[in-house]
Amino acid sequence: MNQQKKIVLIGCGNVGYHLGRRLKKRGVHIVQVHSRTKKRAKRLAKKINVPYTTDLGEIVADADLYILAVRDDVIGEVAAKISERSSNALMVHTSGATPSTVFAPYTNRYGIFYPLQTFSINRAANFKTIPLCVDAVELEDFIFLKQLAEQVCRNVYHITDEQRAILHVAAVFVNNFTNHLFHIGENIVEKEGLSFDILKPLMQETVEKIMKHPAKSMQTGPAIRGDKKTIERHLDYLEQYPDYQELYEKITKNIQLS
Amino acid sequence: MNQQKKIVLIGCGNVGYHLGRRLKKRGVHIVQVHSRTKKRAKRLAKKINVPYTTDLGEIVADADLYILAVRDDVIGEVAAKISERSSNALMVHTSGATPSTVFAPYTNRYGIFYPLQTFSINRAANFKTIPLCVDAVELEDFIFLKQLAEQVCRNVYHITDEQRAILHVAAVFVNNFTNHLFHIGENIVEKEGLSFDILKPLMQETVEKIMKHPAKSMQTGPAIRGDKKTIERHLDYLEQYPDYQELYEKITKNIQLS
Repeated sequence: MNQQKKIVLIGCGNVGYHLGRRLKKRGVHIVQVHSRTKKRAKRLAKKINVPYTTDLGEIVADADLYILAVRDDVIGEVAAKISERSSNALMVHTSGATPSTVFAPYTNRYGIFYPLQTFSINRAANFKTIPLCVDAVELEDFIFLKQLAEQVCRNVYHITDEQRAILHVAAVFVNNFTNHLFHIGENIVEKEGLSFDILKPLMQETVEKIMKHPAKSMQTGPAIRGDKKTIERHLDYLEQYPDYQELYEKITKNIQLS
Repeated sequence: MNQQKKIVLIGCGNVGYHLGRRLKKRGVHIVQVHSRTKKRAKRLAKKINVPYTTDLGEIVADADLYILAVRDDVIGEVAAKISERSSNALMVHTSGATPSTVFAPYTNRYGIFYPLQTFSINRAANFKTIPLCVDAVELEDFIFLKQLAEQVCRNVYHITDEQRAILHVAAVFVNNFTNHLFHIGENIVEKEGLSFDILKPLMQETVEKIMKHPAKSMQTGPAIRGDKKTIERHLDYLEQYPDYQELYEKITKNIQLS
């Protein structure tokens, strides 16, 4: 059924680019893509062979669904523009951070289509394993979005605004903040002329352990052992990186308290 | 050649257990294992079919190599005991944190045999990918240790005390601290009755990205975007976890400064 429904995808950044490709690949009928940046709009439009526009005034008016894969701070203004062209349109956004009620001033039919993953243009996305969180105000819209999600990936969840906000906080810890720790590790070893590759098997195992065991039971190292001598030695070494030193102290205490 | 060399393994904890099994599997001649804890000594001894002792006074005296896989704070005292039984014995330890010079008061022949990985008894260790860092004072000992390491795994590195200290600091960031962030994510979602499984594909992708791209170029999320509204919303939510809230603020600033 979804093949016949007409979908407009707004936003061709990291999420829009990969979601657009996946929808198209799964036979979903995208009638138009939009980006304010011509280069981005063109890149995706060409990849999936659909028309594009850079002008919100030219958005297709009678689509069955508008997917907004745009920055959180412009969701409202894009929704306003769409509602001018298409009153009572079904709109969803793909963000983990913004409540779906951002749409409420512009339409009664709105929801969420949030792939819980980190996307980068230059890296393939494996939608089979990506959890897709959906929600909608109207039951009929929800059923449609859920079917659409199931066409795209295997792990579809009904997640409310409140739950999504919580997932997003947790996602920041396990993804953004973890990536920053990797960045710190990379900086430290490369500054000393060592290869970051030496640490890669350790990083992979750190995550693989968590797939099967609770994180707390997998904690090792000087903090959990209460190995003061090593901790002091590390803090001494980190004198040259005051930010890292402070973070080291803070997380060490945090581990010891939890 | 190593098959004929007699090796004593002291310590049957996370590292000793897995290293002992791997050495044995690769045909290395372990003549004895030791642990202060009878249960641990027995568990490994039985697994690899070698004699065990819980008494350092009963350590085999004429071994070619003593591998100390013990807590950092007892390396010195164990080395002292061995030197009583076996003067000028070749001793190595498996720790990332302690300089090899800890052996200097007890023998002139010492070195390092440090597998850069996180081990847990109840989880299989994949030695093929584990980096093994070796070092020694005497060239002849170094050559022997390097050959032994190559018998055990594919990635053998000559790493000095100074380099190892730096690798260990970095390892704490990318492993111990990362694991703690996973623990925080797990706590947050489970307290709200959500399954941690929803976050697992994200965690796997976080690491997989780093295998091929510099961490900095893979950073996403509200901190790097400067998305103040989302950051404030997250900090509000974290009011109930003051430690997590403080950490969130600190890492966010750190990301923005780097």
